[in-house]
Amino acid sequence: MVTATNDKTRDAARTRNAILHAAQHIFAEKGFTETGVRDITDRAGVNQSLVSRYFGGKLKLFEAALENALDVRIVTDLTRENFGKLVVENFILSPANRTNPLPILLGAVADSEASAIALRLLHDRIFGPFRDWFGGDEAVVRAARFMIVSTGFFTYRDQLPLAPFVGAVDPGLRQWLETEFQAIVDG
Amino acid sequence: MVTATNDKTRDAARTRNAILHAAQHIFAEKGFTETGVRDITDRAGVNQSLVSRYFGGKLKLFEAALENALDVRIVTDLTRENFGKLVVENFILSPANRTNPLPILLGAVADSEASAIALRLLHDRIFGPFRDWFGGDEAVVRAARFMIVSTGFFTYRDQLPLAPFVGAVDPGLRQWLETEFQAIVDG
Repeated sequence: MVTATNDKTRDAARTRNAILHAAQHIFAEKGFTETGVRDITDRAGVNQSLVSRYFGGKLKLFEAALENALDVRIVTDLTRENFGKLVVENFILSPANRTNPLPILLGAVADSEASAIALRLLHDRIFGPFRDWFGGDEAVVRAARFMIVSTGFFTYRDQLPLAPFVGAVDPGLRQWLETEFQAIVDG
Repeated sequence: MVTATNDKTRDAARTRNAILHAAQHIFAEKGFTETGVRDITDRAGVNQSLVSRYFGGKLKLFEAALENALDVRIVTDLTRENFGKLVVENFILSPANRTNPLPILLGAVADSEASAIALRLLHDRIFGPFRDWFGGDEAVVRAARFMIVSTGFFTYRDQLPLAPFVGAVDPGLRQWLETEFQAIVDG
C-alpha cells in the first residue's frame, strides 16, 4: 500500500509538472488571453479536467507557472567580488529555450486579472529580492539598473535576436555588460 | 474635378491612416498570429476589404504598421552635448500610450513570416541608424547599449510598470539614465 501511494504521488507530481511546463510555454507564446486550457493540456498530453483539479483553473495555473519561472537565486547566489563576470557567464550560457519569465509576464499585460498577478509576482519575487540583495542607500536604483540591463540583453538575444547579442556575444558588448553589472554591486 | 479628386485622395489617406493606427494598437495587444484583419477594421470603423485594397493583406499591413511606428529621429535629432539629459527628458515626457514599437515587434515572434519582417525592420530602421549615428570604433556596442537601456526602461515604465519607473521617475534612477546615455555618445 505504501508503494502504491508513493507511485500515485509520483505520477501526480509528474503530471502537475508536465502541465506547469506546457503552461509556461503556451502562456509565453500566445499570451494569457489567447491561451485556452485545452492548448496547455493538449501539449502536456493530459486530460483537460486536470487543470482545475491540480491548480483550480486557468488563472491559478498562470500564477503557478509564472511563479515557477521566477528565480532570482541564479543571480543572488553569486559572489559580489566577481559579480559582473559571473552574471554575464550565466546569461550567455543559459540556453535561449530556458524558461524565460519575460514573455510570460508580457503576455499577461492585456488581461486585468493576469496582469495584476504578474505585477505582484514581478515585484515580490524579482524586484524586492534584488533590492534587498543589492542593499545600501541606492538599493532601489541598483535593482532597477539590474532589471533594465538584463531585460534589454535577453530581449535582443532571445526574443528579437540581433547579431551582437547572439552566440559568442560581441566582445565589446560583453565587456560593457561585465563592467555594468559589477558597478551595480560596487555602488 | 480637381477638387473632387483631392477630396477622394484625402479621404483615402485618412482611411489608410485609421487602419494603420488600429493595426498598431491591435498587433501590439494581441500579437500578429491572434490578430484578425476584422479586429483591425472593426476598430478603425471601415470595411474589411480595404485592408487588401490599401495594403495588400495582413502581412503587408503589419509591415506598414511597424514601419510607421519606428522612428529613430526622436533620438538622432538630439545634440550630442546634452544627449543624456535630452533623451531622458524625451522618454519621461513621452506618454505611455504613444505608439511603442516594442510590443508590436514582440507580438510577431511566434510567426515566422512576421518575425522575419520584424527583425529586418528592427535591424534596418533602428539598430543600423543608431550604429551609424553613434559611430566610431565602438559603434555597434554603443547602439547595443542604447537599445538595452531604452528597452529596459520602457518595459518597466509602460508594459510591466514598477514604482521607480513610473510618473516622476526615481531621482537616482533618472540620474543614472542620464549618465549612462551621455556615456554612450561620449564613448
